[in-house]
Amino acid sequence: MTGFSFEIQAHDGAARTGVIKTPRGEIRTPAFMPVGTAATVKAMLPAQVRDTGADILLGNTYHLMLRPGAERIARLGGLHKFMGWERPILTDSGGFQVMSLSKLRKITEEGVRFHSHIDGSEHFLSPERAMEIQRLLGSDIQMVLDECPAFPATEQDIEKSLALSMRWAARSKIAFAEQPGHACFGIVQGGVYPHLRQRSAEELKAIGFDGYAVGGLAVGEPQTAMFETLDAVVPHLPADKPHYLMGVGKPDDIVGAVLRGIDMFDCVIPTRSGRNAQAFTREGTLNLRNARHADDPAPLDSACGCIACRRFSRAYLHHVVKANEIIAAMLLTAHNLTYYQDVMAMLRDAIPKGETARVAARVAQAYARED
Amino acid sequence: MTGFSFEIQAHDGAARTGVIKTPRGEIRTPAFMPVGTAATVKAMLPAQVRDTGADILLGNTYHLMLRPGAERIARLGGLHKFMGWERPILTDSGGFQVMSLSKLRKITEEGVRFHSHIDGSEHFLSPERAMEIQRLLGSDIQMVLDECPAFPATEQDIEKSLALSMRWAARSKIAFAEQPGHACFGIVQGGVYPHLRQRSAEELKAIGFDGYAVGGLAVGEPQTAMFETLDAVVPHLPADKPHYLMGVGKPDDIVGAVLRGIDMFDCVIPTRSGRNAQAFTREGTLNLRNARHADDPAPLDSACGCIACRRFSRAYLHHVVKANEIIAAMLLTAHNLTYYQDVMAMLRDAIPKGETARVAARVAQAYARED
Repeated sequence: MTGFSFEIQAHDGAARTGVIKTPRGEIRTPAFMPVGTAATVKAMLPAQVRDTGADILLGNTYHLMLRPGAERIARLGGLHKFMGWERPILTDSGGFQVMSLSKLRKITEEGVRFHSHIDGSEHFLSPERAMEIQRLLGSDIQMVLDECPAFPATEQDIEKSLALSMRWAARSKIAFAEQPGHACFGIVQGGVYPHLRQRSAEELKAIGFDGYAVGGLAVGEPQTAMFETLDAVVPHLPADKPHYLMGVGKPDDIVGAVLRGIDMFDCVIPTRSGRNAQAFTREGTLNLRNARHADDPAPLDSACGCIACRRFSRAYLHHVVKANEIIAAMLLTAHNLTYYQDVMAMLRDAIPKGETARVAARVAQAYARED
Repeated sequence: MTGFSFEIQAHDGAARTGVIKTPRGEIRTPAFMPVGTAATVKAMLPAQVRDTGADILLGNTYHLMLRPGAERIARLGGLHKFMGWERPILTDSGGFQVMSLSKLRKITEEGVRFHSHIDGSEHFLSPERAMEIQRLLGSDIQMVLDECPAFPATEQDIEKSLALSMRWAARSKIAFAEQPGHACFGIVQGGVYPHLRQRSAEELKAIGFDGYAVGGLAVGEPQTAMFETLDAVVPHLPADKPHYLMGVGKPDDIVGAVLRGIDMFDCVIPTRSGRNAQAFTREGTLNLRNARHADDPAPLDSACGCIACRRFSRAYLHHVVKANEIIAAMLLTAHNLTYYQDVMAMLRDAIPKGETARVAARVAQAYARED
């Protein structure tokens, strides 16, 4: 694929660190992608997102197709220009949100017909339309349309859904066609069933993609099931392509997945938690609503260089949380995204030194210490 | 007053431009002070407020005494450090908010007893306590406690209230005592009655203040009444001291008041309007909810250098307003504060050239053009 490449620079067991190169910039891996659902990372300006250390954002096809509309964004010069973010953007295909947010879905071989959660209007998403939307947006990394069964599901349901997703993946790849500098990723499904996951991986490899995502995890299953699934599936993914675990996760999920060979992540947890007064730090997870912070002059995390930690005390953050001030969401989102990016940087630093497991354990232990 | 001074550099009729010097920095006049009610200018980081061109912020004694508390802020190093704004801060005395926000007020000669609008708790504000709170906050410009009758009120009510406010002003000045580098401003009351306003001005002059505010306007009276009141009172204020019109106003109010000799303003309109999808521009006032902006690639105001105008289209702003995204409040607040500061800069530039009336007319005409 012209202009899109992945270079692995070091390994530590299954963990890898490297760089994805695109015409819009490099993505250092392991990478965390902040979620910019509706053409904005909530409560952040694009330059502030970059200041946290993010190389790439995720945009949601489902939300953007409904509002403001893919054709409109294309007329306005594409998603990067529209939202003021010039670096790479990965877009999902809308499949997951159709299942989780929309109403009155009807799935056929051709695609999925659904009603908007915003205004009830009827829409249709096929593999071809999902790829057309992502092309209109100008997405750098485009995802195939898949069907996402809810957890728990029977093995039979999962197998049937998987077969449809694989046929849709083949159609998505054809619809993606040639877009120099842009990439198309396949999505492995198969629930928590190793043989189905492996079958999915093999079928995607036969189609041939620029990267391989693991979908359908972090939908309610225990972390052990997620890790066991990764142990079963990642060895079956092409080693020289990026591995992306969709929608994951908590800090301890991420470090565990990196140990198992995952290169890319996205999740709303740092942004959503920030809007909900929760801060992730090297010393534990803090709830800024807690009255014990009211007189505390210390920053959230003395080792953090974010705007919240450089200029504001826990006492101030407690105050603005209690007063429902917008700056609380702005500062805690900036902090949490910085923390997530710092964790990725620590992992990228640890992998060449063979210290990944130690860093992963430290992050998981800090996450477990709650206010 | 050591460390606090006001130098007038040019006149144009009654209009003046100059600089107030304080140990925390200079305030170019005419000056607009963004309102930082609860130790934050809503939806803005302090550095972003500074980027709009603001030299000074206003903080609200009433809000801060209730939450997080003046003694707490003092323990944490004062309001500047607490909220991350190192430049000058003016604090009101709480009198206006006690009247407009609190419940179950009881006013006596000693002060006002009231119940918090947040939790119903009982509080007492006297001239002495109002000044003590402002000293605890570390305010650079401290306002006397006054009583603010609602408009309309009878002349008799106004006269009685005025007499109390003048006795409180004298007590406030004594309580302020000596604070090198900090200033204490008196507040002229008297409603829309010229002889009461003039009496108030004379009584305050006899006490002696570092600056003189006009209070009790922009409370529902027509603009003509506000301007007539300024015409009657400003000539009675000491010409060599700053003149501050409290809580004003719309762009056309501000330019009209500058023409009448006012040097300082504060108002929630630019910030509140920004959170309500309204933008002030050189070409008129825009409502970003309006569907006609949905496909408009133009910036809000092509002559504006704010972050919203440099990077985002009206189409994007319309989209994030419709999607209720926090970035809409962030961008429109930044734009409106920049517009207000640009108006002040245009006035400061026009006064030495004798072009104040022309600039004022242009601003008022733009404000009148609504979406």
